[in-house]
Amino acid sequence: MSEDYRQMWSDLGLDLAAHDALLGVLGKGYQDIFLSQKNRPAGMGYFDFVMSEVHGLRIRELLNEKEAGRKIIGSYCVFVPEEIVKAADATLVGLCAGADFATEEVEKLLPRNTCALIKSAFGFKLGKVCPYIEATDMVVGENTCDGKKKSYEILDDLLPNLYIMDLPQMKSQEGKALLKAEYIKFKKAVEQLTGITIDAVRLKKGIDLVNKKRAAMHRLAKLRSAVPAPISGLDALLANQVFFYDDVPRFTASVNAICDELETRIKKGEGVFPKETPRILMSGCPMAVPNWKLPWIIESSGAVIVGEESCIGERGTRNQVDDSGTTEEALMNAIVDRYFEIDCAVFTPNQSRLDHIVEMAGIYKADGVIHYGLQFCQPYITESMGMEKVLESKGIPVIRIDTDYSMEDVGQLKTRVEAFVEMLKR
Amino acid sequence: MSEDYRQMWSDLGLDLAAHDALLGVLGKGYQDIFLSQKNRPAGMGYFDFVMSEVHGLRIRELLNEKEAGRKIIGSYCVFVPEEIVKAADATLVGLCAGADFATEEVEKLLPRNTCALIKSAFGFKLGKVCPYIEATDMVVGENTCDGKKKSYEILDDLLPNLYIMDLPQMKSQEGKALLKAEYIKFKKAVEQLTGITIDAVRLKKGIDLVNKKRAAMHRLAKLRSAVPAPISGLDALLANQVFFYDDVPRFTASVNAICDELETRIKKGEGVFPKETPRILMSGCPMAVPNWKLPWIIESSGAVIVGEESCIGERGTRNQVDDSGTTEEALMNAIVDRYFEIDCAVFTPNQSRLDHIVEMAGIYKADGVIHYGLQFCQPYITESMGMEKVLESKGIPVIRIDTDYSMEDVGQLKTRVEAFVEMLKR
Repeated sequence: MSEDYRQMWSDLGLDLAAHDALLGVLGKGYQDIFLSQKNRPAGMGYFDFVMSEVHGLRIRELLNEKEAGRKIIGSYCVFVPEEIVKAADATLVGLCAGADFATEEVEKLLPRNTCALIKSAFGFKLGKVCPYIEATDMVVGENTCDGKKKSYEILDDLLPNLYIMDLPQMKSQEGKALLKAEYIKFKKAVEQLTGITIDAVRLKKGIDLVNKKRAAMHRLAKLRSAVPAPISGLDALLANQVFFYDDVPRFTASVNAICDELETRIKKGEGVFPKETPRILMSGCPMAVPNWKLPWIIESSGAVIVGEESCIGERGTRNQVDDSGTTEEALMNAIVDRYFEIDCAVFTPNQSRLDHIVEMAGIYKADGVIHYGLQFCQPYITESMGMEKVLESKGIPVIRIDTDYSMEDVGQLKTRVEAFVEMLKR
Repeated sequence: MSEDYRQMWSDLGLDLAAHDALLGVLGKGYQDIFLSQKNRPAGMGYFDFVMSEVHGLRIRELLNEKEAGRKIIGSYCVFVPEEIVKAADATLVGLCAGADFATEEVEKLLPRNTCALIKSAFGFKLGKVCPYIEATDMVVGENTCDGKKKSYEILDDLLPNLYIMDLPQMKSQEGKALLKAEYIKFKKAVEQLTGITIDAVRLKKGIDLVNKKRAAMHRLAKLRSAVPAPISGLDALLANQVFFYDDVPRFTASVNAICDELETRIKKGEGVFPKETPRILMSGCPMAVPNWKLPWIIESSGAVIVGEESCIGERGTRNQVDDSGTTEEALMNAIVDRYFEIDCAVFTPNQSRLDHIVEMAGIYKADGVIHYGLQFCQPYITESMGMEKVLESKGIPVIRIDTDYSMEDVGQLKTRVEAFVEMLKR
């Protein structure tokens, strides 16, 4: 990244020394994990550029948006409807949460037995190393799991612009009414923040932008069902991660460009790994940048990841908003309908997630499933115990890996993953 | 307990050898912790008898109820409205969850990082040592914390009569609508189970019974504000625990009898400990029978517990149902109003709990607060971190103790508690 940005980071209140250290680790990790891969699609060059500028040019763009009078809204969850944000010409960005930072400071505010994702969100704020959060006009926290719900009460002291969105726990009529009321409230909050009244025309525009972005991801996902796999799981994960940060139409075009390239590959029978490479479906907790540990272990152990049943993956991107409505109410209802289908493990029961895992394993021709649980994430880890039994009963091999962001268990995880991959080869 | 009950336990499907072992430990614990106390009110004799017959006579009574055509409903939470159960001439019982049992079997179904309370509920079922759960016609699970919500999905396979009650996460208008819808649904389920239509007259009778039970607990609580404390915290906790098991009018009369006795004590200036004994307010996670570890450590370290801000304590028993309504709807609304005030840490924000802790510390003249967190209980432990700061800022000494049901940390906890009590004496 260019030296130009130091003044910008300083103006945002970042701790430059700590931020330099972070960028150093991030750059080295990206080099070792992504750039060392073979047979990458040329279109990934765009994502390499995006990542090299993730705290640089993209932040400059956001600040330019602000200067032009537009607003930046930060989020930690796929339940925050980007359609409503885009309808008000504002920008939604996922906030930093994929690496340990300022852990000692974090553990003064949060229990040690809090998952790494939540601790990381606090660490990036406390350590002053996240330019995204410092650039936001509003941050949305949502009542998903206990860990997030209760930690937002503490984050509220650190973030004067924190907005809380309530969520239901069951897919009942009252649950849906609650979600609808929250989305209407959120729409009003966005209107108040931006000074823009969101009418049906604006909503339709927001829906159209985000539907197209998701359609590109659906296209990419479908191409991964080819044998041999035309793209690595790491590269596909990267696209899923950048989904949360990038300018929407530019991202959409870049993913579609990769898809064009992959279609050519598939026609030629070319793949990123040999066709006999065991195919893995990942399922479980989201992996935010730069949490690439487990996918890297899997793909350096002789397997290829062909799908992510994850919020940063198909759980987050599947299903579209029906844009056929013409009134504000019809379009808002369509947004509620789409988001109410998200099968996060905070819902009970959550059969549709299990069905989706089985469906994905079939579509992507997965030889096995690796369930990724973030340590202390009760919803996903508890759900994975029943999931394991169901998949096994269907003859789908599965292992459950619970870990955090530390590198201490890499050797141990590699041993487990290699044994699993070997087993799949038989 | 009498040998008479072996056939009853066997008929209920209990594992007699395991159950004998449990009763042995329970009896010894009760002897060492409760019966060794000095200056106990004579009225505690009733509770000693209740505890000696907790798996015997009380179960016989429940089975007699069933033979007479009445129904038994089990619960794990103070959000299950006993008024509705009593209105249908049914009996509500709290289910066993205060000791580790069959841990190895439990950890095949639940993550190890699940709190001891939830693991215990599973352990009593899997180990076949809880006559209460085996005597139930319906068990109510409720969506409070992630741990319970997600584990009920697994418990559902073990309990054919499990009924799930959804709960809101915020005290909003939609949250209240959700609770009301759930209580109406629960009322219908109880009507279906019992064959009794719950009208306004029946509701009023249920409300009256439970209000009187709570009024007795309010009376007991108020008497504990006297200096010296007229009753030990252990004995008061026992009354709070038996609250969930016993026949309602008999329990109410027994607590009132103790209160008569305590009033006489207070007039004479008599107490259970010397008047200079440091006074502790306990706050935090519920303590189910036989989880007496921390109160026992506190009261054997030279302090007296004067109040419990807990579900098994004042969080569960405070506030009454307004019985002035005359229609079914008015009375159901009054029930919803009362339960919606419960300030469980699953709600966000939860300021009223903090206010209540401060209020209780004042009313009961507490010298300090001990916050009890069950390990891996995210809602209470996360909330306690902010609570500690607020209490300290008000000059109320506080320590936070996170533990489980094992005895391994007793020495360590005793050292911490003794140091805290010594500090309070200065």
